[in-house]
Amino acid sequence: MQTWRRSFSTYGWRLSQSSFLSNRTRLRCADLLASSEKKDAPSFEDQEVNVSGLIRSVRKQKRFAFAEISDGSTVQSLQAILTPDQAANLSTGAAIDVSGVWKACPPGKEQTHELQVTKVRVVGEADPETYPIQKKYHSPDFLRHIPHLRLRTPFNSLLARFRSECIYQLGHVFRSHPHGHFVQVHPPLITSSDCEGAGETFSVTPQSTFSTETSKAETIHFFRSPKYLTVSSQLHLEAYAAELGNVWALSPTFRAEKSDTPRHLSEFYMLEAEVNFASDLHTLTNLVEYLIRDLTRRVSDTPAGREILFAKRTGESGYESDSSNENLRKRWDILLSDSPWPRVTYTRVMEMLEDAVANHGASFTFQPSWADGLQLEHEKYIVDHLFNGMPVFVTDYPKKVKPFYMAPSAGSSAADRATVACFDLLLPEISEIVGGSLREHRLPELIQNMREHNLVKKGSGEASPGDAAYPSLLPDEDLGHLQWYADLRRWGSAPHGGFGLGFDRLIGYLAGVSSIRDVVPFPRYFGRADC
Amino acid sequence: MQTWRRSFSTYGWRLSQSSFLSNRTRLRCADLLASSEKKDAPSFEDQEVNVSGLIRSVRKQKRFAFAEISDGSTVQSLQAILTPDQAANLSTGAAIDVSGVWKACPPGKEQTHELQVTKVRVVGEADPETYPIQKKYHSPDFLRHIPHLRLRTPFNSLLARFRSECIYQLGHVFRSHPHGHFVQVHPPLITSSDCEGAGETFSVTPQSTFSTETSKAETIHFFRSPKYLTVSSQLHLEAYAAELGNVWALSPTFRAEKSDTPRHLSEFYMLEAEVNFASDLHTLTNLVEYLIRDLTRRVSDTPAGREILFAKRTGESGYESDSSNENLRKRWDILLSDSPWPRVTYTRVMEMLEDAVANHGASFTFQPSWADGLQLEHEKYIVDHLFNGMPVFVTDYPKKVKPFYMAPSAGSSAADRATVACFDLLLPEISEIVGGSLREHRLPELIQNMREHNLVKKGSGEASPGDAAYPSLLPDEDLGHLQWYADLRRWGSAPHGGFGLGFDRLIGYLAGVSSIRDVVPFPRYFGRADC
Repeated sequence: MQTWRRSFSTYGWRLSQSSFLSNRTRLRCADLLASSEKKDAPSFEDQEVNVSGLIRSVRKQKRFAFAEISDGSTVQSLQAILTPDQAANLSTGAAIDVSGVWKACPPGKEQTHELQVTKVRVVGEADPETYPIQKKYHSPDFLRHIPHLRLRTPFNSLLARFRSECIYQLGHVFRSHPHGHFVQVHPPLITSSDCEGAGETFSVTPQSTFSTETSKAETIHFFRSPKYLTVSSQLHLEAYAAELGNVWALSPTFRAEKSDTPRHLSEFYMLEAEVNFASDLHTLTNLVEYLIRDLTRRVSDTPAGREILFAKRTGESGYESDSSNENLRKRWDILLSDSPWPRVTYTRVMEMLEDAVANHGASFTFQPSWADGLQLEHEKYIVDHLFNGMPVFVTDYPKKVKPFYMAPSAGSSAADRATVACFDLLLPEISEIVGGSLREHRLPELIQNMREHNLVKKGSGEASPGDAAYPSLLPDEDLGHLQWYADLRRWGSAPHGGFGLGFDRLIGYLAGVSSIRDVVPFPRYFGRADC
Repeated sequence: MQTWRRSFSTYGWRLSQSSFLSNRTRLRCADLLASSEKKDAPSFEDQEVNVSGLIRSVRKQKRFAFAEISDGSTVQSLQAILTPDQAANLSTGAAIDVSGVWKACPPGKEQTHELQVTKVRVVGEADPETYPIQKKYHSPDFLRHIPHLRLRTPFNSLLARFRSECIYQLGHVFRSHPHGHFVQVHPPLITSSDCEGAGETFSVTPQSTFSTETSKAETIHFFRSPKYLTVSSQLHLEAYAAELGNVWALSPTFRAEKSDTPRHLSEFYMLEAEVNFASDLHTLTNLVEYLIRDLTRRVSDTPAGREILFAKRTGESGYESDSSNENLRKRWDILLSDSPWPRVTYTRVMEMLEDAVANHGASFTFQPSWADGLQLEHEKYIVDHLFNGMPVFVTDYPKKVKPFYMAPSAGSSAADRATVACFDLLLPEISEIVGGSLREHRLPELIQNMREHNLVKKGSGEASPGDAAYPSLLPDEDLGHLQWYADLRRWGSAPHGGFGLGFDRLIGYLAGVSSIRDVVPFPRYFGRADC
């Protein structure tokens, strides 16, 4: 066992110098710049340091040249001062490895320190004539055409770090929740079912010559039956929660919608949670409120969070009013405030909307009507005018406009005024960001709902594990690919519920990016999946 | 703004009692059981407590009944003692809400404490005659047929928590790496390219009547061109790394392979990382070694990690030898030890294999041969016999057996003995778990590699951003859907590299689960995607 330790070179492995490892002095721009701003950070003043990154811009003068360098660790650039000779081959967009002394600047300069370059090496050239990213305003639309390069703009680079910070902090949020530890799970993406019943799913089939091997009439399915990309992980989260109690997932979700809006993508991340032994909506709305507030609080205390709040924007974010940063801080302040967010039932808010039309001069394209649900214009009015710009939970929607798996509201009216125990969270400016519900956990009621949604087929029933005659099902009925889901109600089914939050929408909301197509680096939507 | 705060009930919202919130005494089994075992944990002895969970088993005697309760927070069951009346309706699999006093047991019992029940409520019944999960041995194959219920076995429940712990700790591992902060990203799953060139991808098409609307010859694509589920996020990670430096992703990956092995799934999670400004393989192999060792170390210090190491197994894990826990601890010890893992070049290890056949009586089904690559039997021999059961990095494989994007080895021989700067990490017992490489970062060389792999098409080239004539490309050549990838080499392309680790395989390795189909709760593979 000791033989191999004597020398790696015995096995033909060269012990070459690793720049990554031997360069103990290579620093991140973020650490170097922080060292000049924070009193408790280590000081690098007058020390020889090394930095690797891209040149954001270069300015050549007679006696000196100045280069702004970024390595993606901070939205700020590091300023390097060079001789004309050193700068001869430098151009915007080039990747360089640079060493120098970290020197204090004379007072009055924009930056407190700069790098007095002793050695510079261009490791990747960039033709400044063709490089699309310049130090100037680029429109969101222009940048959307070069997704593989737009990360190289300061704001999009920051946005990627901000997303990373949010992912990281979510892990803490779900562990710190006062009512129990949530288990993070990875639900499957290839599924049989269409959770929403909307039918706007993507099919998954092998690319190979699989289907041409057989006649078209009898196409063999790779998975034995047709499969789709998931539109929600909820059904699977219920299976997890039945055993694990509280679970959550941050998981890709797919919709084949042709919507051409800044709010929709065909591929997006959904943050979903499911809570077992939960029997009223308070449990869920309180959890959502806790989650968003705690995440915002945690992120606000990180470098990426502070940069998002204070970074200069040149318009790439599509959020370019003069007061953009001030507006953004107001958003965060509302989320961070201890004031609880209002809850209002759908039925009550509909009365309030009708009253607003009748008595307060409100006017809508779509007249508010209990049976028809809420339009975006109604949601905006609810938040802006009825609740003075606060986040609002609207609860207990009509049963007829909601999916089969929702439990009835406590004390719900019968028949045509029946409502279900669900909620949407509406945020100021962007409206719906979370939807959730208690789930129907009783088998007979669930099957009745499925009948009403045409999800019970007539035909020979598949045998269920342990029992040929499926409870509550007529002999000629068949639950098809949803039998496993009904099965969860056969044994040990407790009241439970959960929700889904549009993660990309939340990132955009917190970061002040108005289109979700600019939140996601490589967005997929109808007609577009570049790169 | 204050009006709504006066009373939620104004808006029709009922301030009902929330069991989730008002039950301050509801405890997780893990906390209750830990309180009896750990000296620094709060003690609940003689206190009234409340627990919700599933009944694992129930034993009814004349004067007393005993129920084992699990809420998924620990692999241990909590023992409740009830009167025959209280236990009358209890059965294995039922969901119950139970209150009682936490009492010390007389010495000599298996458990130190038990719950003397004062009140029990069955919230979800389970017919013991049909409930498939009993307190007995269930074979992995049986459980694989009921994936939606197998989480309810103690070991599969633990496995879900263990995975969650690994995900959480990974966030810390990538932030604590001594050579820089890694940014976590969410690369797209719907892509144009087949990274490995293997062609075993899944196509993504809308389920709707989209294609029947048009004649078959001119099918309109939802995304304007054919799209597939990603087989690797590497190409996109390179775009992220070019700006952000060090990036990582834990992202779903898809392969339409028909392999029927315990090592392959059609949908699995890959842990991938990409490092910019990395110019030798040491950087990458050191990072992989750090990552696996640090993750193992962190997880070993958590409740889920300790339970995995010490939990009694009844065979559901497919890892059922008497000494399974001891074997597992040996696995972890090797990973945790400070001894560096050997590195050996492919060329050198091939000589060692040939020598083993010629002089040490080794025999293989496939004769080792430089041109043919390593078979599984060779990999096992390398680890078990040539390196005495240590993890081994094999580096610098023949160029001909590797993808187009790999950089040449430092000092690689020309022509038919050319090798590329890549590595596989082989672990004892399971062999390959990580593959990585330096990427070809020079545009002319990348395009030449693409020509050799038939990835350059003849035809009119697409215009590239900022330049009509694409550098290094002949006028009639076209890079097709990979132009964006080549673009990354046009401007500021630094030497870089990365790797992909089979996350489910690693979980299975650390948890002692022999088939990946039992690591993933809802596995998808050829012919199977239940639930």
